[in-house]
Amino acid sequence: GSGVSATKKPCIEQNQELSYADRAKLPNVHPLASKLLKIMEEKQSNLCVSADVTGSEELLQLADSLGPKICLLKTHVDILKDYTAGFSQKLQTLAETHNFLIFEDRKFADIGNTVKHQYEGGLYQISSWSHIVNAHAVPGPGLLKGLSAVGKPLGRGCLLIAQMSSEGSLATGEYTKAVVKMAEEQSDFVMGFICGSKISMRPEFIHMTPGVQMQVGGDVLGQQYTTPEEIICSKGSDVIIVGRGVLEAPDRLKAAESYRKSGWDAYKKRMGQSDQ
Amino acid sequence: GSGVSATKKPCIEQNQELSYADRAKLPNVHPLASKLLKIMEEKQSNLCVSADVTGSEELLQLADSLGPKICLLKTHVDILKDYTAGFSQKLQTLAETHNFLIFEDRKFADIGNTVKHQYEGGLYQISSWSHIVNAHAVPGPGLLKGLSAVGKPLGRGCLLIAQMSSEGSLATGEYTKAVVKMAEEQSDFVMGFICGSKISMRPEFIHMTPGVQMQVGGDVLGQQYTTPEEIICSKGSDVIIVGRGVLEAPDRLKAAESYRKSGWDAYKKRMGQSDQ
Repeated sequence: GSGVSATKKPCIEQNQELSYADRAKLPNVHPLASKLLKIMEEKQSNLCVSADVTGSEELLQLADSLGPKICLLKTHVDILKDYTAGFSQKLQTLAETHNFLIFEDRKFADIGNTVKHQYEGGLYQISSWSHIVNAHAVPGPGLLKGLSAVGKPLGRGCLLIAQMSSEGSLATGEYTKAVVKMAEEQSDFVMGFICGSKISMRPEFIHMTPGVQMQVGGDVLGQQYTTPEEIICSKGSDVIIVGRGVLEAPDRLKAAESYRKSGWDAYKKRMGQSDQ
Repeated sequence: GSGVSATKKPCIEQNQELSYADRAKLPNVHPLASKLLKIMEEKQSNLCVSADVTGSEELLQLADSLGPKICLLKTHVDILKDYTAGFSQKLQTLAETHNFLIFEDRKFADIGNTVKHQYEGGLYQISSWSHIVNAHAVPGPGLLKGLSAVGKPLGRGCLLIAQMSSEGSLATGEYTKAVVKMAEEQSDFVMGFICGSKISMRPEFIHMTPGVQMQVGGDVLGQQYTTPEEIICSKGSDVIIVGRGVLEAPDRLKAAESYRKSGWDAYKKRMGQSDQ
């Protein structure tokens, strides 16, 4: 049936789209983007769960139970009250066991010389365990040079933050365009974007969108929510990032499966494979 | 003598300027801005040293030896290989002993709900020891609401990053204007800016400028340097932030004194008190 109303934007570029699997094989794709796209196809999941909890044990349990449902686990290790190097080792093991990648949502945003130290050093040694990190483009391309000097030899990848889901974000218009340009110029390290919708036509880049819930709405600190269907099918993004939609559900595993299915159905619909 | 060439911008608003001491007494000044301005006047120092070292002991030694020369010590605790809660206690003691404030250069850049946890929690518990933090405005005003919920009850203050010293920064033009507006709307928590020049006419705000060296130049990762004289006198900023200019000097104490004098002389010149 056609539940799509006349005012709703139709699924973009239907049938012209490359599948995740096809994009994984593109000659210029970042090796880690290729790996992620393969995982997505294999697990039929474009779901990234944002594991915003403050205890290491809870995070590891979450990674273990939701692992089979996700392509990516997003962390904020700097909100853990009890981070240890042992924790990051266990997390890596779980990522291998359940075949997902780790994405430390660090939002690097300093000059190249500083982010290099923040990425490699300190207590967290992020580059040693997180496959993917992200960064704001506001400091300019030197930031990417700094991160890349650390991450590229390790086979790591970076997402540039081109848009944000929070109200009144300054990452719009010309800013977003400048981010895309910066990514294109350093695509040996940048594998995609944090964004609200598809912002680059290069199929090598992976678009990931936070602020996802089954119902639209927001929080009291400016966060705004959109649905998986809207994000994957109408906005043309590739990965849904879900935090509180899963974490605050009575049954987190059931909620994660629900988001996985919802995100995957939206992808199939975008690919013209839906039976709707 | 007049060493100022015809092409050089003259000292701005000479004689219309309020002194640091006068600004400390303004009715709407942030209490922490007031405290900092008083320290600056008392110690005749508008020098903030950026203590970008990777060992706690070295940082504490630096704080102890350079303490008398500075109004502010800027830290990146996330590059310390051996951070402990004991370190931050010792740093606080040194700040009291030598009468300077601590500024953790965290560059918060996430949505309100996340920065709240990053500021208060994790291993670093930044809000418990750092008088001042900074933040990027790119996520929108919700970020300030999140930080303020943690920091305001503790009497902390925040600097918004309005401009950056790195090449190709996106913090320019309309972006910078939006940052100033955001600061003005939340001036109960925002006490000033990280910027390249004076960007707000409100004397309650403190302008701080990184990328300062005695000689102009840059690094291989896009950092660009300007002199203390240029920043305080021509650009109208209030505080010079010096990192490698001090840290890489053969004698750090001597270098810090040289920057303190240079920054203070430029301030006196701006106030029309110079005998040049």
